[in-house]
Amino acid sequence: MSALTRLVEHPVTERVVLALVIVNAITLGLETSPSVMARFGPALVALDQAILAVFVVELALRLVARRAAFFRDPWSVFDLVVVGIALLPASGPFQVVRALRVLRVFRLITRIPSLRRVVGALVGALPGMSSIVLLLLLVLYVFAVMATQLFGADMPDRFGTLGLSLLTLFQLVTLDGWSGEVVRPLLETHPYSWIFFILFILVSSFTVFNLFIGVVVNAMQA
Amino acid sequence: MSALTRLVEHPVTERVVLALVIVNAITLGLETSPSVMARFGPALVALDQAILAVFVVELALRLVARRAAFFRDPWSVFDLVVVGIALLPASGPFQVVRALRVLRVFRLITRIPSLRRVVGALVGALPGMSSIVLLLLLVLYVFAVMATQLFGADMPDRFGTLGLSLLTLFQLVTLDGWSGEVVRPLLETHPYSWIFFILFILVSSFTVFNLFIGVVVNAMQA
Amino acid sequence: MSALTRLVEHPVTERVVLALVIVNAITLGLETSPSVMARFGPALVALDQAILAVFVVELALRLVARRAAFFRDPWSVFDLVVVGIALLPASGPFQVVRALRVLRVFRLITRIPSLRRVVGALVGALPGMSSIVLLLLLVLYVFAVMATQLFGADMPDRFGTLGLSLLTLFQLVTLDGWSGEVVRPLLETHPYSWIFFILFILVSSFTVFNLFIGVVVNAMQA
Amino acid sequence: MSALTRLVEHPVTERVVLALVIVNAITLGLETSPSVMARFGPALVALDQAILAVFVVELALRLVARRAAFFRDPWSVFDLVVVGIALLPASGPFQVVRALRVLRVFRLITRIPSLRRVVGALVGALPGMSSIVLLLLLVLYVFAVMATQLFGADMPDRFGTLGLSLLTLFQLVTLDGWSGEVVRPLLETHPYSWIFFILFILVSSFTVFNLFIGVVVNAMQA
Ligand code: NA
Ligand code: NA
Repeated sequence: MSALTRLVEHPVTERVVLALVIVNAITLGLETSPSVMARFGPALVALDQAILAVFVVELALRLVARRAAFFRDPWSVFDLVVVGIALLPASGPFQVVRALRVLRVFRLITRIPSLRRVVGALVGALPGMSSIVLLLLLVLYVFAVMATQLFGADMPDRFGTLGLSLLTLFQLVTLDGWSGEVVRPLLETHPYSWIFFILFILVSSFTVFNLFIGVVVNAMQA
Repeated sequence: MSALTRLVEHPVTERVVLALVIVNAITLGLETSPSVMARFGPALVALDQAILAVFVVELALRLVARRAAFFRDPWSVFDLVVVGIALLPASGPFQVVRALRVLRVFRLITRIPSLRRVVGALVGALPGMSSIVLLLLLVLYVFAVMATQLFGADMPDRFGTLGLSLLTLFQLVTLDGWSGEVVRPLLETHPYSWIFFILFILVSSFTVFNLFIGVVVNAMQA
Repeated sequence: MSALTRLVEHPVTERVVLALVIVNAITLGLETSPSVMARFGPALVALDQAILAVFVVELALRLVARRAAFFRDPWSVFDLVVVGIALLPASGPFQVVRALRVLRVFRLITRIPSLRRVVGALVGALPGMSSIVLLLLLVLYVFAVMATQLFGADMPDRFGTLGLSLLTLFQLVTLDGWSGEVVRPLLETHPYSWIFFILFILVSSFTVFNLFIGVVVNAMQA
Repeated sequence: MSALTRLVEHPVTERVVLALVIVNAITLGLETSPSVMARFGPALVALDQAILAVFVVELALRLVARRAAFFRDPWSVFDLVVVGIALLPASGPFQVVRALRVLRVFRLITRIPSLRRVVGALVGALPGMSSIVLLLLLVLYVFAVMATQLFGADMPDRFGTLGLSLLTLFQLVTLDGWSGEVVRPLLETHPYSWIFFILFILVSSFTVFNLFIGVVVNAMQA
């Protein structure tokens, strides 16, 4: 083990980086307050830049120390991406790039083993869900095409385009305001549209529910 | 195995049909956009017709190759129905028939084994749910008759007919807007109506919840 | 076994009563329609009375045949209660008594063994839930008393009395419209009220969720 | 065992205290009604004070009898805190202190063994949830900072400050009114904001769902 490896993996280095991530999380939160920015803006931004510089140096050292192994560790790549975003020039859609800088706070996940395990477990549950998620997307797509054709003309703000229909049907999947905002207003012009929506709610709820069951059963058997 | 069977079950045939189903899913989605239709309308419709023709020929060949066995396979019957719908004349309620054509996209389920397994599992869970679903329908019906008699005169848009009451009570089962849209406005004329609705929410939620448990327990023991 | 017992337990008797319950369910539903009542009102009411008469005779015979054993069977007592309600004079709060007559339709549960099993299982799950339900009621009560004292003056239609507070907090348990209808309007006069409501939502959701888990775990071990 | 210990642990003492807690729960509820207070106010307040005096004496005796052991029993400390709150002077934010007095009713939990077990089980489930709750808070925080930067200017009442963004995102976690109140109004000025919100709903729902699964799996294995 080289001196460099010992340095970047040293508990003190790890603790310092963790502390800096936490401090950075707080400064990024404080930067959302106009009154705080009016008083401490330059100091906060300077602190932000300094912490970012430490992160860049730390990542560069880890990359040099581990070389190819660095890219085989998904958490290192994750660190690289979220720190890389912060280095993007803030020109163009400035607001979005600036907003994405806060993703750096997710480095807490990389730094705290219990969080890393939880995220690992969550991500590990995804492949087992792929078939049923594909089915759900298929059902959403087919119903959205139908809804656009059937209701687009009479309710353009909800079903005027395929995109709007997909958003409205996703709203129905979450059972949010489906009755008062979507189905009841449509009953006036389409008295039988309830069949379409009740059917969609039953099919999608049942599918989502079985998605859940699959995950539970997998978790039990693991 | 006849040459015909070899042809319709040949991996290349299967892959071509799968590709056509996916292409068709995209064209049917594009057809919902007026601007796309204005520019590529005739080409999309022609492509649509060509794909439909291939589907008809493929199904006819499979029917000839398997004969009675074709009808014993529920997935073949499913293919036949969704392709058959696309051949219906678009007279009468033109919009609805045109909308149902998109059901063809569900042929993806028949074509992708993992989707077929998932749908098979979902459909297979239904018989075990029949008793509790029947109970839920019975509870819905009895409460809907009562609600129509009790609240129909004072809230005709929600409880004016048995059908409207069933829709409103289904809204309560999904816990969507029940307080602001239904129960609170009724409290003015029926100060004790909350008893009816809280009771219905408790009974129906508990029944739906036990429906879920039954499916989970069955899934665990399978 | 007496001749009377043989008669009331004879499969033909059982099937006739089941058929009458179903016919009665349909007539009670039809009676909610003013246009049907205008045309067939007297006939439906007469049919209703005739079916009720058969139910009374059948119950009387079963009571005579089984005597004390009749009252030890909860399903018989259930039949007696729902048929008894239909015999109540329709004076006083006429509408409510008339509405309760439809409870007769629940005799379907007594008549169909699979429904009886499901309801038996649902009712059997209740005692195991009593402690956690009591806890939930206690939490609801304590938070409702506090909400009435804290917010009653500023939002009298939602927290003006203990009863209204209980209803509003039950609405929060179902997560229905809690933000737009309750918490946001209160933030203007009570900027820290979100602490109260978020705490209540977390505590009540967690308790309801554990209620569910308890039932699932019991069902698995059964 | 001293005479004092025998006294405070005597079944009769326990039953008297339980009865007083229940009576106190009722009087605290009655005190929310202005008409009851107008007629019986002084009597209720006097009864309240008398019950509180008994509680103070009982707790003091238990403290003397058990000394250090008193503070090692979390339920005794709980009793001490909720009774202590009632002794706070009602100056300053009078309404809040008066409202907190009703927490005394939670002494029912200490007094009823089955409730104590349920609460013990609920509290015991918390440590196992800490990692995933921390992850959820982290996701909420990062998305709230981003939402404040991206949407704060255009929707100040929902995303104007970090606190408001956190409240709005918690509303999205509960899937309450997210479409009609938050996402749809934003689509006009931020046509791609649906990506942010759908992503947040999927990530937070999936995390909450896995929180539930973890608790279920732990409960099964216990
Ligand atoms: Na809702
Ligand atoms: Na909801």
